[in-house]
Amino acid sequence: MKELIKNSLNDLDSAMELRELVINKINNQKLTESDIIEIVDTVDDLSFEDTQKLGSIFRRFPLGCDLLEIGVGPCSSSLTLPQFIENCVFTDHMGFPIHLCGYALADIAEKEGLTPIEVMNEVYNNVEVPLDLDHFGRFGPMRFPKEISHCMGDCYYNGPPYKGCPRDRIHKRLITKEREYSNEFGEWIKKSATVCVNVVEEQGGGDHGADISEMEDVAKAAQKFGRGVEGIFHIGDGYEDLITGLKACNDLDVDVLVIEGGPFNRSKDRLKDFAKSVAVSRILVKGGVVATNGAYEDECRVGLRSGLNVILSGFSGNHHGYMCGYNIKEARRNNFGLPRVLKIMKEEAEKINICIANRELLKVLARSSRFLNHNENHLVYPSMIGDYFIGDAHWVSITNSKMYNAPYFGKTLDSLEEELNCDKVGVLGGRYISWGIADALKPEELYVSDVDPWVEHATVKILNDNGINAYACNGNDKKALESAEKSVITTMIPEIVLRIKNKFDAVSLL
Amino acid sequence: MKELIKNSLNDLDSAMELRELVINKINNQKLTESDIIEIVDTVDDLSFEDTQKLGSIFRRFPLGCDLLEIGVGPCSSSLTLPQFIENCVFTDHMGFPIHLCGYALADIAEKEGLTPIEVMNEVYNNVEVPLDLDHFGRFGPMRFPKEISHCMGDCYYNGPPYKGCPRDRIHKRLITKEREYSNEFGEWIKKSATVCVNVVEEQGGGDHGADISEMEDVAKAAQKFGRGVEGIFHIGDGYEDLITGLKACNDLDVDVLVIEGGPFNRSKDRLKDFAKSVAVSRILVKGGVVATNGAYEDECRVGLRSGLNVILSGFSGNHHGYMCGYNIKEARRNNFGLPRVLKIMKEEAEKINICIANRELLKVLARSSRFLNHNENHLVYPSMIGDYFIGDAHWVSITNSKMYNAPYFGKTLDSLEEELNCDKVGVLGGRYISWGIADALKPEELYVSDVDPWVEHATVKILNDNGINAYACNGNDKKALESAEKSVITTMIPEIVLRIKNKFDAVSLL
Repeated sequence: MKELIKNSLNDLDSAMELRELVINKINNQKLTESDIIEIVDTVDDLSFEDTQKLGSIFRRFPLGCDLLEIGVGPCSSSLTLPQFIENCVFTDHMGFPIHLCGYALADIAEKEGLTPIEVMNEVYNNVEVPLDLDHFGRFGPMRFPKEISHCMGDCYYNGPPYKGCPRDRIHKRLITKEREYSNEFGEWIKKSATVCVNVVEEQGGGDHGADISEMEDVAKAAQKFGRGVEGIFHIGDGYEDLITGLKACNDLDVDVLVIEGGPFNRSKDRLKDFAKSVAVSRILVKGGVVATNGAYEDECRVGLRSGLNVILSGFSGNHHGYMCGYNIKEARRNNFGLPRVLKIMKEEAEKINICIANRELLKVLARSSRFLNHNENHLVYPSMIGDYFIGDAHWVSITNSKMYNAPYFGKTLDSLEEELNCDKVGVLGGRYISWGIADALKPEELYVSDVDPWVEHATVKILNDNGINAYACNGNDKKALESAEKSVITTMIPEIVLRIKNKFDAVSLL
Repeated sequence: MKELIKNSLNDLDSAMELRELVINKINNQKLTESDIIEIVDTVDDLSFEDTQKLGSIFRRFPLGCDLLEIGVGPCSSSLTLPQFIENCVFTDHMGFPIHLCGYALADIAEKEGLTPIEVMNEVYNNVEVPLDLDHFGRFGPMRFPKEISHCMGDCYYNGPPYKGCPRDRIHKRLITKEREYSNEFGEWIKKSATVCVNVVEEQGGGDHGADISEMEDVAKAAQKFGRGVEGIFHIGDGYEDLITGLKACNDLDVDVLVIEGGPFNRSKDRLKDFAKSVAVSRILVKGGVVATNGAYEDECRVGLRSGLNVILSGFSGNHHGYMCGYNIKEARRNNFGLPRVLKIMKEEAEKINICIANRELLKVLARSSRFLNHNENHLVYPSMIGDYFIGDAHWVSITNSKMYNAPYFGKTLDSLEEELNCDKVGVLGGRYISWGIADALKPEELYVSDVDPWVEHATVKILNDNGINAYACNGNDKKALESAEKSVITTMIPEIVLRIKNKFDAVSLL
């Protein structure tokens, strides 16, 4: 893998080969600690610039998800239920996934004389965006003493290296309270799109997280319901801790990797090791999405330049409100970090010409996922073509949100199959919808045109490697149209569909 | 007008007649105080339910703008420049117009060693949504002593009736500071889409606002640059003050009416008089948009049911952050009212099946305004067909925002004219774009189909009254298509264009 990593810096095929190798190992439970060490060591040897370049390469379709996104924590034990729901509705209006800290919802429930799941139901009934559940344990939402649920974020304020909570607090759990509503456990997961598990205990941070066996139970429960699993780990010393964290996440078969830097980035070379953690995660992440839930402003910017997808922020009172985007001596409880993280993300996105997900884009993902239904099969992650998933963790997340069930007037693979009914098919746009058309309808010849040469090259290669005669059209829609009997506009973005439809006689899915 | 008002409750034509009468009077400077008194008295006699019904009727197209929207105040004298710009970028991302309090920008400039316009330029360069400028005086941004710029909102916290500032503060202005940068006066207006003028001094609130002659100067300057003018007045006693306020706003030829209730609603029957103020404003407002910048939660809800369009809210530290959506003993400085106002608005919007403007909708307005260009004429408010403006104050506001200059791939009236080149034209959708097509291209016959019978009826009537042979098609697109030689899909919402284009062979503007 060492050579593949180095070659990936300048050769897409090498990067594709590496991803196929890693995904294959993950799917067959054959990814070993030595594999992880080899990858970490190789990336360690790269320069700071090459590390960022490598990470960005592995964020490109189809090696990973090429979207940026903000996850938002709207909850806090100090909020009333109306204030909390107002924050949720506001986040939903913006189209950002909602990150729910189980303990805060349970604390609010206790104050309002409700059971924890009744507060979760309030959220579920008021929003459509995906719900990402954190601080969730063996019995349901974790419960902490006030000194933890109302912690002021001293460790983030003081900065690294984290040597235990500055206020000597340890990870005390109110297990009796948690057991009280363990009957509600399954309902929480059903209402969530993704569930977080924290492996910090494996990384020696026992005073900061649940034990790994509990995390294993939670991960398994989420997977049983087909929910995505997000593995949270610390950068720690930037080497041993990084390896342990990645290993522990892999053992739990997580879909998304969530990196915590900030005070928990105890590395001598903070920014290089943040970049390295992101780049290595991009190579290893099963579901193609890499996030951070703790990163100072400089770490956020370096992370975004190294292939990061998601930065978690939050409302005032929520601990994620201060954990990302601030600097030492700025990060503290009651910060409302969302505007700052959005501005940082916009500035970086502009430089690298990448999209920030919003409500319109989530609707496009939902439509695309609705389309990829064929003969009762949902051809979306973890469905695969060869060693490639169709879609990524975002697709699982949107499929498990209420947005997926919004009224949908478009076609499905089933209806398209009837409409096409021909051997030579053109696809204008070469991403996951085209993969679904190829995989489900198995046309004799498929002509692929995409404005991004990488996308076109990779898609044709993957389809050819998996028994489908696909031909590249050098981004020339006309060539695809002329070569095929019928051509399909494979985007669910209405403006783009219209623009193509105005130029060519092609089938649209909307 | 008395009879017209009563008949308007159940007859669209009467409501149309009343609006035509009022707009005609306004445009010819013939709207008198007695006219206003007659309208106020007639609405006064209506029941609380009928007042709300009347107001809602006059919010329906084409009597007024039928959108809901939140204006957002992101500024505060207590913010740093980065924090302020982060709030602006965040608001822009959501697609809400930005309400700028001149004094806060000038205070931030002073702290940062910049001139006031340099802070305004920072906002302008970082956002695309319309900028709505308030607290702007004869010399530029007003400047206040700290006790005013950092006021804690005691009057809003204590509730009505307002008997002067609970902390005995009076409207002190730091005129010397204001004069210092009077050379920047014009630049502020050029960068704004709308400018606010407050007539409270005319209503006897001298301790709370600038004198009317200064407001006249500001209004005239804004009008000279083609910017929209928003007139702010208090409900006061609900009768005398209401009449004086509306009269003063009319004298300044404002486009939008902004009602301040809250503690400044000293009426014996708070909610009835809030509803009355909105309903009367809907009848009288030249540019079809009625807003509130101060309203407790119950006033917000009643206002929305009485025809209100816009509720102004704001970030923590901004006085608009607490002036709308809260209750007495809740409203206070540092409230971040945006999530609450959004939730209230969503709840009410759902009941009355009305849209809340977001970034996508602003883009649609911008495209529509771009389309309405014909032979170097911009057929948008204050352009008229008979006694009806084409568009409303929102259209002026979007036209004067950077969003108007975003890349536009659609058609204009000029290009459509060449493409159509026929006598019988069908328009699928009967709103302002269709008015522009009728007015500019003067087809011999125009077949109008709109899913909303009110829209279709009113549009056909207005066009017929103004020399255009327009025929209603009972919302039946097919009928329009079959009657005309060519038909045009007159919406700029891509999903709807696609849906119609998939069914009929019609010309789209995108």
